[in-house]
Amino acid sequence: MPPSPGARPRVVVLGAGFGGLIAAKDLSGAPVDITIIDRQNYHLFQPLLYQVATATLSPADIAVPIRSILRDQENCAVLLGSVDTIERGERLVLLDDGRRVPYDHLVVATGARHAYFGHDDWEPVAPGLKTIDDATEIRRRILLAFERAETESDAEKRRALLTFVIVGGGPTGVEMAGAIIELAKKALAADFHHIDPASARVVLLEAGPRILPSFPDALSAVAQRSLVRMGVEVLTGRPATLCTRAGVELGDERIGTRTIIWAAGVEASPAAVWLGVAGDRAGRVAVEADLTLPGDPHVFVIGDTAAVSWKDGMFVPGIAPAAKQMGAYVARSIRTRMKGETPAPFRYRHQGNLATIGRKSAVIDFGRVRLTGFIAWLTWGAAHIFFLIGFRNRLMVMLHWMWAYLSFQRGVRLITGSTDLP
Amino acid sequence: MPPSPGARPRVVVLGAGFGGLIAAKDLSGAPVDITIIDRQNYHLFQPLLYQVATATLSPADIAVPIRSILRDQENCAVLLGSVDTIERGERLVLLDDGRRVPYDHLVVATGARHAYFGHDDWEPVAPGLKTIDDATEIRRRILLAFERAETESDAEKRRALLTFVIVGGGPTGVEMAGAIIELAKKALAADFHHIDPASARVVLLEAGPRILPSFPDALSAVAQRSLVRMGVEVLTGRPATLCTRAGVELGDERIGTRTIIWAAGVEASPAAVWLGVAGDRAGRVAVEADLTLPGDPHVFVIGDTAAVSWKDGMFVPGIAPAAKQMGAYVARSIRTRMKGETPAPFRYRHQGNLATIGRKSAVIDFGRVRLTGFIAWLTWGAAHIFFLIGFRNRLMVMLHWMWAYLSFQRGVRLITGSTDLP
Repeated sequence: MPPSPGARPRVVVLGAGFGGLIAAKDLSGAPVDITIIDRQNYHLFQPLLYQVATATLSPADIAVPIRSILRDQENCAVLLGSVDTIERGERLVLLDDGRRVPYDHLVVATGARHAYFGHDDWEPVAPGLKTIDDATEIRRRILLAFERAETESDAEKRRALLTFVIVGGGPTGVEMAGAIIELAKKALAADFHHIDPASARVVLLEAGPRILPSFPDALSAVAQRSLVRMGVEVLTGRPATLCTRAGVELGDERIGTRTIIWAAGVEASPAAVWLGVAGDRAGRVAVEADLTLPGDPHVFVIGDTAAVSWKDGMFVPGIAPAAKQMGAYVARSIRTRMKGETPAPFRYRHQGNLATIGRKSAVIDFGRVRLTGFIAWLTWGAAHIFFLIGFRNRLMVMLHWMWAYLSFQRGVRLITGSTDLP
Repeated sequence: MPPSPGARPRVVVLGAGFGGLIAAKDLSGAPVDITIIDRQNYHLFQPLLYQVATATLSPADIAVPIRSILRDQENCAVLLGSVDTIERGERLVLLDDGRRVPYDHLVVATGARHAYFGHDDWEPVAPGLKTIDDATEIRRRILLAFERAETESDAEKRRALLTFVIVGGGPTGVEMAGAIIELAKKALAADFHHIDPASARVVLLEAGPRILPSFPDALSAVAQRSLVRMGVEVLTGRPATLCTRAGVELGDERIGTRTIIWAAGVEASPAAVWLGVAGDRAGRVAVEADLTLPGDPHVFVIGDTAAVSWKDGMFVPGIAPAAKQMGAYVARSIRTRMKGETPAPFRYRHQGNLATIGRKSAVIDFGRVRLTGFIAWLTWGAAHIFFLIGFRNRLMVMLHWMWAYLSFQRGVRLITGSTDLP
């Protein structure tokens, strides 16, 4: 239904990640009625999720209730709910509990999830890292592997328990590998009687020729050297051909392990299905230069869910700053359109890539400027504190980091849920 | 098997709660080999667990890995495991994964769990608060009830979603009731568009004639007045006769609610069954004056699992200071026996009872001295910070409290796990 004459346009935002949240916030004060819908009640600062998975931070340190963030924004309602489908003809979002949410402008910002390239049966043995529940599950498996190793009398089984394989050499894989080897060599080193946690084997598998493929060659090499120096085995050009409870197979070779972490790829949320359009190979939705769906100016698709052309035949990368720029663009665009004008096309400004490798080491590519080592690590830390939402979270993350840095300990070594290994 | 001549006595401690942990720590340096076994990898500071359930603290703020605590104690190994049974004839603890742990001295300190007095079928709708997983589950239900109420159009269903019933008026029930009403009236008050969280109904049900029955009459009355002033409905002399998904029945009357929290009673861990002795009505094991099992001086039973006579026909209460005194006694007792001497009987020194009611209010009974109000609240806070283990936890809890006190907010409002209500 079209809005009744004089009614305020209804903006529905799906997803309160970086893109959706900024879209909603930047419409503060605009004469629109916004509803932001998310499956969770919190906005998650995903770049630090690996630190929850490796026992440095608590979930609440990097997650803030969406309602708190938007509390003072009169024109924005927050709804906990999951999308079932979208009726574009009727301009309706249908939620899986039967609720119907009408829109004039729809912003689809539902992000991405990990993908197994047709091997979805690997997921139970090789969980990925996208949600808080993923992170506490991975933390549980890592800590439990050391506990089980402590009482395992069979040498081969003990070896498998003390072997950790990360599949995928992008930033998440690199960060996980660095954090796990530090956990083993520092935080846990003195805590066991029968095993030496420092003897743990951490293997980073990358199917392509080098880790951090989105970075310049030189920085990939720096990162690989740093990881190797820390004790990580980096295997490039080696795709995993099978993941089971017993280990990872690489063609004829097998690495015995009880802990596999999947960081090898993402696919977009099922937005293409909801919208009734064809997604690309990664499930992303192609959009016009103004980030709307071709032929349907009422629907914006942004962030990791959208395939947005950038340069040299590449797409805008699936990183937080890109999603935020798109969210801000959509808010501006809606305001412009309400004035009866045509918005200028979206232009992505790439600010850089950064990945941390471990204590005191990171790589940053600002284009012309490249940073490595301690300076890069400080810059990485400062940037993450700066972009965290909320004073409380900034303070807590800083304190946890200072404590971890000075004590070499990890503050959140809790095995919650079951104490059985899968 | 008796220890081979000259071998060090093997001390096995079951449970790393307050009692077990102190028993192990106080044997530091003694010529014994200690194994401490727990189902979890962390020691939990249970007195503050209700603050995890009500979104003030993160689990890691009140839980410390047992291995970290005992890291420097050479004579103590830590084992993650669950007891299947105890073969007292063979002096063996059998774990449920088949491991066999022999002992010369066994310290059973496995605590208590909530009890439903023959109504175990109420547990799914009325969870109790004993573990971290309990606390995050209760937190999930409380926060989810507000979220569901926000979109519920049926007035009666909305009322039930905004009604919270705590069954049991002991310290845990009082603390939960105070924390939930504050959450509703302060932290959530401004966050919803369609409901007024401050209109939430919090009901504290006590079957007996007054809340806080272990306190003097006058303090019970103070606590009840404070709760009522905060907006809690306190119903005494009203036992719950049925708990269902729809609500709590009190005889003919029914309170419609979707959130019931069980704080009405505890029973001892199944230690009596493991040991092959008769437990009392609450499952506790009767012990001699030296806390050993009658007729078996190799087995100590302490803390909430033991029925220890105190005065006026009462038993030593199931509180942290009592468990710690018993743990310390057992360690002294083992040292004394190793010198060939007979230990003096255990004597409980009651230091007092304390319960907090909410922001700026608590009741404390030190026997001759009784405190209420703000002074009691400060004393309560200082005592809890003091008894927390670890500098990091003390600092974090203090910061969370300061932040919560100054901002009226709650920092850990995360719905984790499923977003369906039971």
